[in-house]
Amino acid sequence: MSQIDLKGIFPPIPTPFAGDAIAFDKLAFNIEKWSQTGLKGLVVMGSNGEYVYLSANEKRELIERAVELTPDHMLVVAGTGCESTKETIELTRDCAERGAHAALVVTPHYYSGRMNEAAMMAYFTAVADQSPIPIILYNVPKFTHVNLTVKLVAQLSGHPNIVGIKDSTGNVIQLGDFANNVDPDFNLLVGTAGALFGGLTLGCAGGVLALANVAPEICVRIYEAVKAGNYEAAKQLQLKMIPVNQAVTATYGVPGLKAAMDMLGYFGGDPRLPLMPSSEKEKSEIRRILTQAELLDVQ
Amino acid sequence: MSQIDLKGIFPPIPTPFAGDAIAFDKLAFNIEKWSQTGLKGLVVMGSNGEYVYLSANEKRELIERAVELTPDHMLVVAGTGCESTKETIELTRDCAERGAHAALVVTPHYYSGRMNEAAMMAYFTAVADQSPIPIILYNVPKFTHVNLTVKLVAQLSGHPNIVGIKDSTGNVIQLGDFANNVDPDFNLLVGTAGALFGGLTLGCAGGVLALANVAPEICVRIYEAVKAGNYEAAKQLQLKMIPVNQAVTATYGVPGLKAAMDMLGYFGGDPRLPLMPSSEKEKSEIRRILTQAELLDVQ
Amino acid sequence: MSQIDLKGIFPPIPTPFAGDAIAFDKLAFNIEKWSQTGLKGLVVMGSNGEYVYLSANEKRELIERAVELTPDHMLVVAGTGCESTKETIELTRDCAERGAHAALVVTPHYYSGRMNEAAMMAYFTAVADQSPIPIILYNVPKFTHVNLTVKLVAQLSGHPNIVGIKDSTGNVIQLGDFANNVDPDFNLLVGTAGALFGGLTLGCAGGVLALANVAPEICVRIYEAVKAGNYEAAKQLQLKMIPVNQAVTATYGVPGLKAAMDMLGYFGGDPRLPLMPSSEKEKSEIRRILTQAELLDVQ
Amino acid sequence: MSQIDLKGIFPPIPTPFAGDAIAFDKLAFNIEKWSQTGLKGLVVMGSNGEYVYLSANEKRELIERAVELTPDHMLVVAGTGCESTKETIELTRDCAERGAHAALVVTPHYYSGRMNEAAMMAYFTAVADQSPIPIILYNVPKFTHVNLTVKLVAQLSGHPNIVGIKDSTGNVIQLGDFANNVDPDFNLLVGTAGALFGGLTLGCAGGVLALANVAPEICVRIYEAVKAGNYEAAKQLQLKMIPVNQAVTATYGVPGLKAAMDMLGYFGGDPRLPLMPSSEKEKSEIRRILTQAELLDVQ
Repeated sequence: MSQIDLKGIFPPIPTPFAGDAIAFDKLAFNIEKWSQTGLKGLVVMGSNGEYVYLSANEKRELIERAVELTPDHMLVVAGTGCESTKETIELTRDCAERGAHAALVVTPHYYSGRMNEAAMMAYFTAVADQSPIPIILYNVPKFTHVNLTVKLVAQLSGHPNIVGIKDSTGNVIQLGDFANNVDPDFNLLVGTAGALFGGLTLGCAGGVLALANVAPEICVRIYEAVKAGNYEAAKQLQLKMIPVNQAVTATYGVPGLKAAMDMLGYFGGDPRLPLMPSSEKEKSEIRRILTQAELLDVQ
Repeated sequence: MSQIDLKGIFPPIPTPFAGDAIAFDKLAFNIEKWSQTGLKGLVVMGSNGEYVYLSANEKRELIERAVELTPDHMLVVAGTGCESTKETIELTRDCAERGAHAALVVTPHYYSGRMNEAAMMAYFTAVADQSPIPIILYNVPKFTHVNLTVKLVAQLSGHPNIVGIKDSTGNVIQLGDFANNVDPDFNLLVGTAGALFGGLTLGCAGGVLALANVAPEICVRIYEAVKAGNYEAAKQLQLKMIPVNQAVTATYGVPGLKAAMDMLGYFGGDPRLPLMPSSEKEKSEIRRILTQAELLDVQ
Repeated sequence: MSQIDLKGIFPPIPTPFAGDAIAFDKLAFNIEKWSQTGLKGLVVMGSNGEYVYLSANEKRELIERAVELTPDHMLVVAGTGCESTKETIELTRDCAERGAHAALVVTPHYYSGRMNEAAMMAYFTAVADQSPIPIILYNVPKFTHVNLTVKLVAQLSGHPNIVGIKDSTGNVIQLGDFANNVDPDFNLLVGTAGALFGGLTLGCAGGVLALANVAPEICVRIYEAVKAGNYEAAKQLQLKMIPVNQAVTATYGVPGLKAAMDMLGYFGGDPRLPLMPSSEKEKSEIRRILTQAELLDVQ
Repeated sequence: MSQIDLKGIFPPIPTPFAGDAIAFDKLAFNIEKWSQTGLKGLVVMGSNGEYVYLSANEKRELIERAVELTPDHMLVVAGTGCESTKETIELTRDCAERGAHAALVVTPHYYSGRMNEAAMMAYFTAVADQSPIPIILYNVPKFTHVNLTVKLVAQLSGHPNIVGIKDSTGNVIQLGDFANNVDPDFNLLVGTAGALFGGLTLGCAGGVLALANVAPEICVRIYEAVKAGNYEAAKQLQLKMIPVNQAVTATYGVPGLKAAMDMLGYFGGDPRLPLMPSSEKEKSEIRRILTQAELLDVQ
């Protein structure tokens, strides 16, 4: 098993844009702020990073700059999953060369009907075999309409270069099922903040959470509270964060997450088209939710 | 709010059959055993009770006998949901008259496209208004393909005769969402054992669990452990029970639950057709899972 | 194979209510009107008949009265599917005794995960074996969340007492697949009017169509046109009826169908609760659609 | 409205590979054969072209070579849909520059929850506004989990540079609904061969059909038969083709289509990973289906 410590909280960071280009100055600004919050590292080019809207060149430049901008105490995980095995391997290698510490690899999914256990096994094994850096599986049925089976995750957890999974289903029964069947040092990462407390109490190593972009301190506090056995405090924070997390994921998506970042002192900005920016009505609802959760002061 | 204490563990008990008829002697036998395990009460005519296979007369006789057979320290909850408002009210009244302490009312669902918030609001309000006993909402999308919204549950929780919800989604984020929005003394009951620990740590009052038919003591121990703040013990028991619960619910259904009961000293017997009894191969797999979970001795 | 001629158009008739009771006078009124439109027969207690809201006694009285009221040149098909094999057989026999010519038997579906090919095969075989009248399979995944496979329908089509299927998927590829695999004299009945023309051109015997309650003459004209090889006329009528059919099925459901009946000179009335009557806004939209399709005069 | 005649049959051609590269000699071989079958044109880089597995450079080279290789009597349609508006516009322009006659643009879909009518309207309008060649909408929920609404298609049909839609749902009711609402000269293209006859009888202009890669002559004969009013012949061919189409689409996917091409004298070859080549067992089943449909001689 590759040596990498994934215990803690990671935000899957949005990609900031200025007009048609990536806004690297805003990226620097955000990373500087996140670096003071207790986060374990950053995930670049995940679903919240609009990775499907970035060109091959942009991805390489983005990871290079993100690595440069991130302080040494933090990890940089690169989202490198493409639809084809070939392109995923190439991108993973290029990200490794540019300093990424690990790669988050989403399940290929366009031909979902053919992405059976055998195809997935072959895919992740080929990628892990040829990657210079450790691989984290990325299971996000909400976007991919594919769900990795327990059997498959258990088998893949035995690969020396596959070190964990980000599971974004929010299904703690599935997390428990994974926990029962994977290799002991395999890292289960909760992929949505609503299930953070539940996942951590079942033994998950940490979380990769959209919410950690806008409320990193609270996500870290939940993590620390569970580690310290302070379940009641963790529960209270978890309950308070559920509506915020709902807003910045399921209800308002990446545009909502970016709007919330703008409200909370980060740079969010507009998503790339065809994702539409949040409407004024949506923004006002997001503001209400942030205020109610005491992330924003009453105005 | 009606006064009824739902804190604890309830099994939704299978209906035992002998040929074409309900086997009341077997029911007596099972209830006698369950009554010594720390269970809070029994749910009769839930999904695991094959309520959709019972005639109107059978339902009335079954609740009458179940009430007679159940010792005073335990509650009897009657599943009284029918598709029509009219029939549900009649059955709820008849069960109340026969001594049921509360009614579990499933969402009507055949015309799922029309079962919107307004229709559900009117339905549950009418039933609760006309029921002599407290109402528990029953949300089980796996069977009904309908999911009660947080908004609706929050509104219904304000009705003086609606005292709780059994939520069988296994979705702890939804349970947390409910917790944030319902009346303070509204009882959230976890509806599937895989989410029991997760639900209880978020403040749920108890559980109505298929697993509690075959492993009542362990379900009660998880409940007691969380109440005592002994999270690590609860977690270990929870993880151990996940595969058993998976087997007696999702994978093998009611026939699998009945087969497991037969293996563990209860009477299970055959389900009613069209549900087919577990095959020998399924039984052998269930036996393996029970053995691995140390519910059955290695043979 | 049982001798019964199902070639033609059948409406699955709504059950008229007056207060809490079935309004048999309104039933008589409607049947009298339908009997003059060229319909082949009536389906009583189908999904549009709100069969899930009728008690066991009501069902028996309804079929008895429907048979009495229907003129000899028309068939009466009784919807007799219940969840249990036992209850379905009993109801089928009782309907046969009361004069129904055939029984339409919906797939059992509450435990959809267990309703596999073996369970369905056993179910329909048992029902057909013990029914005095011919059986028509009823496949309506919109309500049941179960879809009969081609393999299963092909096998069941060989049973001497199973004479056809009403397939309500609207999927003409599936109808073609059935046509390729069933016994030659097995009756394929299109179960939704939007697919009537498409199904008939592929060789279907007829249709059981919600639309035939409100526009029986046009449904019959489509049927006759295809039989006469007049495809262009059939196509024009089909296109004109698509929005009306959409309104009285998918969009506004049984309440919409009943509202449309009231507008077109039949008795519709209110559905049973929890189905809510169409709102004024819905009624006005239905009126607009009927007018545009020239079923109602411009007012 | 742009002037382009889309009436007829188009195969969405598979991309042939040799090792890691596109096999342009095999492409030439296939196009030479297809050009003698009565096809109206070719669709390059559709779903069957594994477009999600082609790099940006490969796509440009592929369309350039396909245009060169295709005789003048045939159209070349380029699949140019990417997830981002920006990349789609760039690729569409580059394909136009290389001689493509029209562009087939799939619905963006990764963030399916946000791809509402407003986002789709803005997306397709922006692409059509900036494209030098006519745009054909591509609706394929099987892969995208997004379905274009009738309202949206009707609106987009009014754009002067949007000339049609390939609808791959196989849902003839939806095709009829489109027919009722789109601009008169908007081209409805049936997107799956099982619905070809049904779609054409409702007035569709033609089809873009996986089946047309392996049985182009028969697809063209169905098209010609309907045009000539010879519905019975069309029906017989349609029924015969349903199992073949099922095999080369839903059941065995692109690998199955490529295997069938190899059996029928075209070059199929292996798909790109992670798509796995058909197994020997799958190939033998495909061979059986092709033989039964008289596309292959009995051996």
